[in-house]
Amino acid sequence: MTEVPRIFGAVEAGGTKFVVAIGNESGEILAQERFPTADPRSTLATMQAFLRQQNQAFGALAAIGLASFGPVELDKDSARYGFIGRTPKAGWSDTDMAGTLAREFGCPIGFDTDVNAAALAEQRWGAARDVSNLVYLTIGTGIGGGVIVDGVPIHGLMHPEIGHIHPRRHPLDVGFEGVCPFHGDCLEGLASGPAIVARTGVLLQQLDEAHPQWHIQADYLGQLCAQLVLTVSPQRIVMGGGVMSQARLLPLIRTRLLHWLGGYVDRSEILSDIDRYVVAPELGDDAGVCGALVLAMEAVERPRPRQY
Amino acid sequence: MTEVPRIFGAVEAGGTKFVVAIGNESGEILAQERFPTADPRSTLATMQAFLRQQNQAFGALAAIGLASFGPVELDKDSARYGFIGRTPKAGWSDTDMAGTLAREFGCPIGFDTDVNAAALAEQRWGAARDVSNLVYLTIGTGIGGGVIVDGVPIHGLMHPEIGHIHPRRHPLDVGFEGVCPFHGDCLEGLASGPAIVARTGVLLQQLDEAHPQWHIQADYLGQLCAQLVLTVSPQRIVMGGGVMSQARLLPLIRTRLLHWLGGYVDRSEILSDIDRYVVAPELGDDAGVCGALVLAMEAVERPRPRQY
Repeated sequence: MTEVPRIFGAVEAGGTKFVVAIGNESGEILAQERFPTADPRSTLATMQAFLRQQNQAFGALAAIGLASFGPVELDKDSARYGFIGRTPKAGWSDTDMAGTLAREFGCPIGFDTDVNAAALAEQRWGAARDVSNLVYLTIGTGIGGGVIVDGVPIHGLMHPEIGHIHPRRHPLDVGFEGVCPFHGDCLEGLASGPAIVARTGVLLQQLDEAHPQWHIQADYLGQLCAQLVLTVSPQRIVMGGGVMSQARLLPLIRTRLLHWLGGYVDRSEILSDIDRYVVAPELGDDAGVCGALVLAMEAVERPRPRQY
Repeated sequence: MTEVPRIFGAVEAGGTKFVVAIGNESGEILAQERFPTADPRSTLATMQAFLRQQNQAFGALAAIGLASFGPVELDKDSARYGFIGRTPKAGWSDTDMAGTLAREFGCPIGFDTDVNAAALAEQRWGAARDVSNLVYLTIGTGIGGGVIVDGVPIHGLMHPEIGHIHPRRHPLDVGFEGVCPFHGDCLEGLASGPAIVARTGVLLQQLDEAHPQWHIQADYLGQLCAQLVLTVSPQRIVMGGGVMSQARLLPLIRTRLLHWLGGYVDRSEILSDIDRYVVAPELGDDAGVCGALVLAMEAVERPRPRQY
């Protein structure tokens, strides 16, 4: 008797859009739907309707993975495990994400941040297949990062919130106040898509190649990479998101990373092979939903957190 | 027949002094010697002579732990595993530390950075006994940090080198160039013991309480803590080293950490309980050698790195 391939549900719950999908263990997406993120009640109802329908079409889902915008509660001992925490996204604070699925579907639910999930996907199927320590960054409407150490996402007190570190201000960017509602000129306040628009009035790709914004942007993101090298020591940094779709940005960032490290980290991966150290994602827009698929698979493969 | 308690060797290899010791599984130090770090040949010979002698006095050592100043090679697949890398410490670049012990003593050798080891010790016996994710910082001649995630030190590409992040410059400290030979005004260049002396001409404890240096120092270290919260999400930050022996510094650092986070990390551990979140070490000067003891014990308990 042939074993029936396992089928998983995957939800990328973003602040702007939801992607719901059905996939298999090879990372193939068998069915998919996208819809804008509205209020929690109607958005989660649309998500559930899709999964219910697919659950009947494909047979019982082995697990569902949920990769959510944050902040989220990842402590499995907490009564609020699987909830979105306090968020500026109107109406979404204190929404029970994982519980909503667990109550309807009698299968394991994998749950993590959207960026930790995307990092897992890039490690399993994408630009970091050959390493077990990596950072996945997304530079877009916001700036976020997932950190994988020895194959496992960092949770700790909460989860990384890399977008809110404070880079040193670029000398050509001293007047700009930044757009972060919490910090003003933290990294997200200085280098996210909305920050570029607030500073220049246009999108990055609309700026001439000689415009200083390219260098300001590359410097802030190079500082981000340097801080990460020095604190979490990744074997690769994968940089995605809308702002990174401008391909000429990546080489400029690599140069600024080397500048900020100042030759201190004496590793050939950085000193001789930086083009393979800071890279673009291979999964593109699918990183999030593929990450949710990994969360589903790991909910079956690795039902409990690692213990030592 | 009663089981004979296991005895371990422990070496804290610091840039200024070596501490060699014999200890048991309860963290008790049964014999100990300290001597200044001279050239590698004579220093390692003194270390070996001590361990040889104790090996005869106490019976065969079950394992030896070696907690070394860095940078060090932690990749067990590398031919240079257990070596010190390129270091400004004269004569010590490319010194085979772990191999020197492995060749003489037929027991497992545990090897890690001095700060990762100190973090493990504070977690097992000290100020972080109740958590599994922590950072141990030492602020002294240099600035270093060990990072433990789910009970295991971060290695990755190399190991964290937290002292070399670039904090934002304090408005009262704009003229000072910093003392780091690699970066000038990175954190170590601005907030290590030698940086304080270079800036003020005296030690921190010799400065009046109203001197701005106290606030400059607290601000830089508060930024360090904030960057760590946002990148590695520790459940506790333990701050030791010579500069931190000034007890009035810790409350000032906590205040600046809260400033830089700007209310963004919505966790009671930080917002309501910061005095238990950023703390002094409990093992004091023994953290390093106790950490070496943990490395020895783990070399027996956990002979291979975790695999997923």
